Amino acid sequence: MEQTELQVEIPSVLKQTSCQNIKGFDCVDYGNRNDPNPLENAISDKESYGESIAGSNITKLERQEVVIISSPASPSGLHIGQTKLVLHSEKCENTDQNNTKNPYPQLAKQKKFHSQPILVRENGDRKVVHSEAIRDHRFDPFKTWSGRLERQISNLRGKPTQEPDIEAGASEREEIEEAPGVDRYFDALEGPELDTLRATEVSVLPEDEKWPFLLRFPVNAFGICLGVSSQAILWKTLNTSPAMSFLHISPMPNLILWWAALALILFVSLVYLLKIVFYFEAVKREYYHPVRVNFFFAPWIACLFMALAVPPSIAVNLRPFIWYILMTPIFMLELKIYGQWMSGGQRRLSKVANPSNHLSIVGNFVGALLGANMGLKEGPIFFFAVGLAHYIVLFVTLYQRLPTNAALPKELHPVFFLFVAAPSVACMAWAKIQGDFDYAARIPYFIALFLYMSLAVRVNFFRGIRFSLAWWAYTFPMTGASIATIKYTMAVTNIVTRSLSVCLSAISTFTVSTLLVYTIIHAFVLRDLFPNDISIAITRKKPKFSKMLAHFRSSSSDSKDFDSSVSKNSDI
Amino acid sequence: MEQTELQVEIPSVLKQTSCQNIKGFDCVDYGNRNDPNPLENAISDKESYGESIAGSNITKLERQEVVIISSPASPSGLHIGQTKLVLHSEKCENTDQNNTKNPYPQLAKQKKFHSQPILVRENGDRKVVHSEAIRDHRFDPFKTWSGRLERQISNLRGKPTQEPDIEAGASEREEIEEAPGVDRYFDALEGPELDTLRATEVSVLPEDEKWPFLLRFPVNAFGICLGVSSQAILWKTLNTSPAMSFLHISPMPNLILWWAALALILFVSLVYLLKIVFYFEAVKREYYHPVRVNFFFAPWIACLFMALAVPPSIAVNLRPFIWYILMTPIFMLELKIYGQWMSGGQRRLSKVANPSNHLSIVGNFVGALLGANMGLKEGPIFFFAVGLAHYIVLFVTLYQRLPTNAALPKELHPVFFLFVAAPSVACMAWAKIQGDFDYAARIPYFIALFLYMSLAVRVNFFRGIRFSLAWWAYTFPMTGASIATIKYTMAVTNIVTRSLSVCLSAISTFTVSTLLVYTIIHAFVLRDLFPNDISIAITRKKPKFSKMLAHFRSSSSDSKDFDSSVSKNSDI
Amino acid sequence: MEQTELQVEIPSVLKQTSCQNIKGFDCVDYGNRNDPNPLENAISDKESYGESIAGSNITKLERQEVVIISSPASPSGLHIGQTKLVLHSEKCENTDQNNTKNPYPQLAKQKKFHSQPILVRENGDRKVVHSEAIRDHRFDPFKTWSGRLERQISNLRGKPTQEPDIEAGASEREEIEEAPGVDRYFDALEGPELDTLRATEVSVLPEDEKWPFLLRFPVNAFGICLGVSSQAILWKTLNTSPAMSFLHISPMPNLILWWAALALILFVSLVYLLKIVFYFEAVKREYYHPVRVNFFFAPWIACLFMALAVPPSIAVNLRPFIWYILMTPIFMLELKIYGQWMSGGQRRLSKVANPSNHLSIVGNFVGALLGANMGLKEGPIFFFAVGLAHYIVLFVTLYQRLPTNAALPKELHPVFFLFVAAPSVACMAWAKIQGDFDYAARIPYFIALFLYMSLAVRVNFFRGIRFSLAWWAYTFPMTGASIATIKYTMAVTNIVTRSLSVCLSAISTFTVSTLLVYTIIHAFVLRDLFPNDISIAITRKKPKFSKMLAHFRSSSSDSKDFDSSVSKNSDI
Repeated sequence: MEQTELQVEIPSVLKQTSCQNIKGFDCVDYGNRNDPNPLENAISDKESYGESIAGSNITKLERQEVVIISSPASPSGLHIGQTKLVLHSEKCENTDQNNTKNPYPQLAKQKKFHSQPILVRENGDRKVVHSEAIRDHRFDPFKTWSGRLERQISNLRGKPTQEPDIEAGASEREEIEEAPGVDRYFDALEGPELDTLRATEVSVLPEDEKWPFLLRFPVNAFGICLGVSSQAILWKTLNTSPAMSFLHISPMPNLILWWAALALILFVSLVYLLKIVFYFEAVKREYYHPVRVNFFFAPWIACLFMALAVPPSIAVNLRPFIWYILMTPIFMLELKIYGQWMSGGQRRLSKVANPSNHLSIVGNFVGALLGANMGLKEGPIFFFAVGLAHYIVLFVTLYQRLPTNAALPKELHPVFFLFVAAPSVACMAWAKIQGDFDYAARIPYFIALFLYMSLAVRVNFFRGIRFSLAWWAYTFPMTGASIATIKYTMAVTNIVTRSLSVCLSAISTFTVSTLLVYTIIHAFVLRDLFPNDISIAITRKKPKFSKMLAHFRSSSSDSKDFDSSVSKNSDI
Repeated sequence: MEQTELQVEIPSVLKQTSCQNIKGFDCVDYGNRNDPNPLENAISDKESYGESIAGSNITKLERQEVVIISSPASPSGLHIGQTKLVLHSEKCENTDQNNTKNPYPQLAKQKKFHSQPILVRENGDRKVVHSEAIRDHRFDPFKTWSGRLERQISNLRGKPTQEPDIEAGASEREEIEEAPGVDRYFDALEGPELDTLRATEVSVLPEDEKWPFLLRFPVNAFGICLGVSSQAILWKTLNTSPAMSFLHISPMPNLILWWAALALILFVSLVYLLKIVFYFEAVKREYYHPVRVNFFFAPWIACLFMALAVPPSIAVNLRPFIWYILMTPIFMLELKIYGQWMSGGQRRLSKVANPSNHLSIVGNFVGALLGANMGLKEGPIFFFAVGLAHYIVLFVTLYQRLPTNAALPKELHPVFFLFVAAPSVACMAWAKIQGDFDYAARIPYFIALFLYMSLAVRVNFFRGIRFSLAWWAYTFPMTGASIATIKYTMAVTNIVTRSLSVCLSAISTFTVSTLLVYTIIHAFVLRDLFPNDISIAITRKKPKFSKMLAHFRSSSSDSKDFDSSVSKNSDI
Repeated sequence: MEQTELQVEIPSVLKQTSCQNIKGFDCVDYGNRNDPNPLENAISDKESYGESIAGSNITKLERQEVVIISSPASPSGLHIGQTKLVLHSEKCENTDQNNTKNPYPQLAKQKKFHSQPILVRENGDRKVVHSEAIRDHRFDPFKTWSGRLERQISNLRGKPTQEPDIEAGASEREEIEEAPGVDRYFDALEGPELDTLRATEVSVLPEDEKWPFLLRFPVNAFGICLGVSSQAILWKTLNTSPAMSFLHISPMPNLILWWAALALILFVSLVYLLKIVFYFEAVKREYYHPVRVNFFFAPWIACLFMALAVPPSIAVNLRPFIWYILMTPIFMLELKIYGQWMSGGQRRLSKVANPSNHLSIVGNFVGALLGANMGLKEGPIFFFAVGLAHYIVLFVTLYQRLPTNAALPKELHPVFFLFVAAPSVACMAWAKIQGDFDYAARIPYFIALFLYMSLAVRVNFFRGIRFSLAWWAYTFPMTGASIATIKYTMAVTNIVTRSLSVCLSAISTFTVSTLLVYTIIHAFVLRDLFPNDISIAITRKKPKFSKMLAHFRSSSSDSKDFDSSVSKNSDI
């Protein structure tokens, strides 16, 4: 992968061309270039290179070899002094080169669980890196303090930074400030969760190596918290509900799950907080992602779940101020998100409608339920009303399947289980507000039940769908339906409802357990729980056709697939 | 029409060409051809013929003469032995040739009413057929046991079937298994009920002669059952409601209508059952038809109506198990149909939305009403909830009139009266569940009333619309509104509500009577109650332009109309 | 601007050309032309002129001078005798020339307030007019009795009208009968209120001079009545509500506002009645305007507001017959408008959906509230039900922001406050019907509150938006929300709700006051309260490109803007 290897492999005809281009290949912010758009530079260089090649008579094989060259870290030794410095001062940046030394001893234990596979690989890389002493700049655009802190320190040490570097930094800053528009996300990504790059697109971050852990840690991870904390509620309900007393469930599962969920929430929050601090651009891009944005509700909903699942041995009655604290961020996000739906820009509902939008609705009902549990009255109704109005809008929109909803998956997908979440929580919330599981509560309950059945009968559900962390978020609706069924069983106690309660509880626990096993396998065996989060690495503008072509030639997929995707794209 | 006539008409220049083609003209599955796509064969032959002609200097007149030749039955005498056998063994298949002898003596009386016109014509044809002793294979692709039974019998008799025949049968089978996609229905058909073939399309069944009765018997026929059984409910309500006692309605109309409806349901069910048995492919194509599929709810709704209309002299309280039996198929169909709406394939709601979808909603409310009448509680609320959720979705979708709803008629049409059905039944269902015609029941009632008035004021309603059997389905909502009004009158008894009840009941009875007269006229005078059901005879793939052209030349419509429809099609 | 000046300015090369064209320039119905399409004549003349010029080598300056010529009144002295007569007999027509003498002494006082600026200007013009004694025929197509009355009188006086005049009148009549289709409104106009002519369009009425006052008086003016009468309700509620008694509001503000609103309603109604009488074509075009049509509900809603705001000192209980009288036109309009939404012509909801549609919904709830206040029961529930059903449809449709909703503004706009109107009135109506501010009433109330907040936080709201009379209509929802909050405070009395009531009342009063100041400034200082109502002056058919070009050349806007708008248009 080093330049020496390179010279051996490249035929002499190509040597000059390639040498001219190597410098610019990876230089996201090289310092010696006055490039106004560094993020797209890597690509345009590839392109110009591809074009220059196109003139000569090189075979495909030769070209591919050359392109492979572009993947390693920048070969020039320009920043050697600086980079060494960085290795000491920027420990927490977690780039490929320097996140081997964990700067957070207090998190070491948990973190190791997830990062070990990466660490191992990086350990291998590290030697190369140290031997060359080169800092990888390719992740800089996503770093919060990419070059600044570095420069400040080197300035303190008396080494003036080159002027061009600052200029490049400024233009890079500019680029970062403009995150890609929603249309770009739809254009560049595909799949029900908009997390796969289209064949015609190129990533701004290297696709062929593992990114820093924090960059790969998506906001979807809060889904795990949702899954576990909702299970805690389920087992609390199974324990405390008189209608289910025949099962003789002990309070222990609730207690254990609650503490596990608490630990999980704390860990995920902390890691994500680090991401916010060190890779704010990446967080911003997640926030602008039309599907991901809904997951920003997840942490708060998980907290609401924790408050609902609190074991009776820890606290019986929570103080209402907790409710106000937890509902504030949800309310703020709603003002923002719902406003965007209505105000008709790029994020209008007919464009971004996706089952994951349910996550931004369900918070209202969970909030209403918790508030009603605490004995509040007006607040819960407020959120219930807001949730109802927007749920109707979303339900109709998703059911209609407008042709403009580009993001909606063609086939059913676990994400559709989110349909069940809102009505099953809503019925509990209303029953609590009203003080009785009356007809008005049964209507949403039965809607949830029908949707559940409607989804369950479509058995080819999990077939051919790639596992993803987001699946965790799709389990809590099943748990929610189970809890609602138990509440309903309390109102209508008979053998049918009891069986249904047991059945649904078993299914939801089984699903969560299966998912846990999957997650553990992916985390420790396959070591791909956190793959490169390609969703945040799309270019700001559509790559030109020649770029796509260059990119495509460099990739190994067959041209048939490419042609179809190109033509599909041009059709749109 | 025979070959002798033909030779006289064709000019000598054409003789050779035409003779080469005549053999293939109508041979849907001739047996001596290894054709992989028999259903489209007739057309492609016409096309190749037209193309071969195009090279020579024949005038248009000559060509038209030749094309006319293609319409009679196949002139080759290949299957003489087989066909004779068929005439004895396949009596129940009801093909053009052999349905003259009625194999169902128990149904003879009713059947004669409807089939007589066909019989008469077929009697005329029969002589020709018998003289030539040729079996018409053109309807085979729609037959359940088209060639198989035949072959089995001839094999038993020691005559081995030719190999090519089996191959052709296999490919035919293949074709049948793939019914046309939804898009094909929208592309090939037009009109509010998607029952008219576009000018650019060709039918796979002969358009210029009457098809077997069972092939022409649509699922829409259950609409008559809906119309009559709902009238039975109306007259029962008029008889039993204290608020309407001033009318002194006797229990007789209810009794008569109920028995008539029962006879009708039994008859229609039996005929349709025969269609399922003998022309399963035709039933399948009706099921895949985006408008027709909703009529598959009709038989079950009619049964629910029967249970609601049961005269007090026959039974006062029905047993709940009836409700469970009747709701099972409705529930199954709903899981299927609503799932299709949501799951976003070709049958997503924004594509198939059509007022006839109300038929698939209204069953929920009728079921809820019957269940509540029987004293059930949870089941009715379940169906009420499911109905409510989907009614809101459908109501909004239909009111919006999305530009993608290709099937929605441009102008108002009787089908729009289906809008009134769901809310008027819903209000009764809720009133029964709640035990009181409360505000929550009045809201759907008044919505129904407003929609009724909104439709009624558009007077140019029945103008310029071709009568169809489906109209029967559009009368039951009016009857439903009348019954709801009587129920409302029971809650709010005054001169206005009483007048309204009388008024609406009169209108609905008048409409049903008028429709009955129309139906009788069409059945016995015009003898076109069951025209060729072109909706099920569309080709699986879009015919090529040359085929359309060939088809068009052979038809008698003027070219102006054709040009416009072609250009319209290409615009879309 | 007179012909004498003209001859001085025009270079000799152009003289002949211009003279040939001058006659036809403004002659909408000249009498000496057999033109089948007089409304578009002015333009086609311009065009042909522009084209004839294009051949010669004239500089842009010259052309512009020539075009300026077309703006004054027709220079030919053909109708001198007639016109003089008109000046005496057609006093009430209010054309630029002759509305200086106010024919309605009883309205003089109020009218002067608004018309003075115009009068002053017209006084200046009048001298010219009288000196030339020429009648302006350009507004004739919009006049109800354009030429007829005139002709009748001249016929009475023995002067036979020329035949061609009558023919032209007939074709003109024809043109008027066909108002522009909805598509034309969307194509020709832009802006959230569809009140700005696109750059590529031409107006059928002169754009560069003030039109007769009645032609400029839009139906939007009833918005002022809504704003003031709703304030009267607010102050009545503040005065009478026990929960707000701590404010010690006197009954005077209510009394004053009520009388002011009454005077305003009478005045606006009278002026609009005159418009109906004298410019029926203009009223028709307003009625066909997809946004304006909703304002036809405004007069009736204002009357309902007046009935709700009636000061206790004038009447305590109103007679129910008033309710029936007021609801009749609303009901009729609803049958018409909602029917259009559903029936799927050009006015289907997915096409015309616009926040101003809320005006056509809110009447139901206001009617329900008034009826319930009067002690009626069924009527209010009827309108509540109708309102609810259509509000759900509209709410979902507007929230979805279908891409087909061409009229929906890209950015938020005061018109969005109409979202708040329906739920805030609905909650009061339900509370009154139910007799209690229960949960069912709180749900719409909280929805209104959330929407209010959602809109309020988007602070760049009033920035960069041109003031328009329609804004008045957007203030009553704020007032409605304030009143609903006071009603809610009566149910839940605490410091928070009381503060909210005071706060919202203050905001709404402040907004209305600000708007009043704005209106006064625009009326008396800027004198542009009633600008030319370009929305009604669009051509019936799309102008051809050459016409657009000619029109564009004659206008002073820069070509960059034009090009973009042309290309935008052709893209669509």
